[in-house]
Amino acid sequence: MSYPTVVFIGAGNVANHLAKGFHQVGIDILQIVNRSFDKAQKLADEVDAKPTDDVNNISWEADIYILAIKDDDIKDVVSNLSLSKGILVHTSGSVPLDHLKNAAPEAGVFYPLQTFKADQEVDLTQVPICLEATSSEAFQQLNTLASKISNQVHNIDSEQRKTIHIAAVFLNNFTNHMLACAEELLVSHNMDFDLLRPLLEETWQKIRHHKPSEVQTGPAIRNDQQVIGEHLDRLKNEPELQAVYRVLTESIQRKHS
Amino acid sequence: MSYPTVVFIGAGNVANHLAKGFHQVGIDILQIVNRSFDKAQKLADEVDAKPTDDVNNISWEADIYILAIKDDDIKDVVSNLSLSKGILVHTSGSVPLDHLKNAAPEAGVFYPLQTFKADQEVDLTQVPICLEATSSEAFQQLNTLASKISNQVHNIDSEQRKTIHIAAVFLNNFTNHMLACAEELLVSHNMDFDLLRPLLEETWQKIRHHKPSEVQTGPAIRNDQQVIGEHLDRLKNEPELQAVYRVLTESIQRKHS
Repeated sequence: MSYPTVVFIGAGNVANHLAKGFHQVGIDILQIVNRSFDKAQKLADEVDAKPTDDVNNISWEADIYILAIKDDDIKDVVSNLSLSKGILVHTSGSVPLDHLKNAAPEAGVFYPLQTFKADQEVDLTQVPICLEATSSEAFQQLNTLASKISNQVHNIDSEQRKTIHIAAVFLNNFTNHMLACAEELLVSHNMDFDLLRPLLEETWQKIRHHKPSEVQTGPAIRNDQQVIGEHLDRLKNEPELQAVYRVLTESIQRKHS
Repeated sequence: MSYPTVVFIGAGNVANHLAKGFHQVGIDILQIVNRSFDKAQKLADEVDAKPTDDVNNISWEADIYILAIKDDDIKDVVSNLSLSKGILVHTSGSVPLDHLKNAAPEAGVFYPLQTFKADQEVDLTQVPICLEATSSEAFQQLNTLASKISNQVHNIDSEQRKTIHIAAVFLNNFTNHMLACAEELLVSHNMDFDLLRPLLEETWQKIRHHKPSEVQTGPAIRNDQQVIGEHLDRLKNEPELQAVYRVLTESIQRKHS
């Protein structure tokens, strides 16, 4: 079985993690295209590819062209591309597939559902790869590629991908904000957030092994009006935390009523 | 140095974890008092103490009496107690110290900041113990006891303890609800929560090593109005999730403005 060959457009974190992952499993990377030649060369050297900083020098011999650039730059870069063959994909969670349709005969999305940092190894086999494509043939090609590096390849359309993006805001950003609110409360009463770290560890261990909807606890789900009333009363000098407390308590109660 | 002797009133999860912890480090537990004699006996056998189900049989020879019972039962039990010597403490996060004052010459709080489950070992050395007492002598006694089992003993007054309780609602209950919202979104679009588990793991690893206020990310803190607008628009059929999204986005923006 022969595997598709790849060109990367972009040399940032996503390109780095994916290109190295492909290289390790023997996928042939023909070229790294990046507006900074140094960055292109650095990554190209690591994955036995050729570097270029000129879109006009892109090799048109590859099977799959992976745009691994910032969401906001996709429109601009795509307007300068015109593939006569191959599949053009982006790696974004929030850009619809049809933003690529005019630039190539086949287009797709190759979205790794993880945050990548420059200095941190990621086990790609455990990263869900969300795929979408303009044809079943193109999907098959992307699936062949994705399955070489990940054990979790999913068929996810543009609507679902947007939903994932919103869900990730709840899961990551809003969760972080809840902890920041707890931190703010402690600090404003001369205590340190570290006091709650053992409880946080316990919270994490529980959630790790259960569906969140099945392990909700606390005064809201118990409908313990006395405790809720006391908490709201004590938060009266911190009206923003009080507003958050009230809305989330109501949200938990509605969900479980 | 001699250590204080202890009587436990209660034989539930908190009593079990604390009594076994004390016993392991050589603290003398004189008695386990519980309305179910069988439960008292079971724990007493494990910690070389005597069991009783009769409040009138409580040994008045101990230095510290630990009420490890439900918050709602404290008032009732305390009204039947009258210590002529020793320190009476409870283990609750939310009951003020002065609820104990009439029942003993000295009173205090011995609050372990962790959730305990019957079937799960907890490393007590890592559990913060929040202490409060009616006198510095009593505090010293409690401190001697707490320091035998935990490396994290804190002087926390009743006001601070209530704040901790509210902070714990944010940290544990509300965080869980954020994940439940993410789950609800995915499920309603025919996806599984497991899709987000790798991102959740990453979220956790980040928070584990930082203060939450220092690692906030996402459209709210970037003030990315376009993404926020799109998300709110897509949540219009899920008005409760939309309300949560709106309030938390505003809360993040106010906090960081």
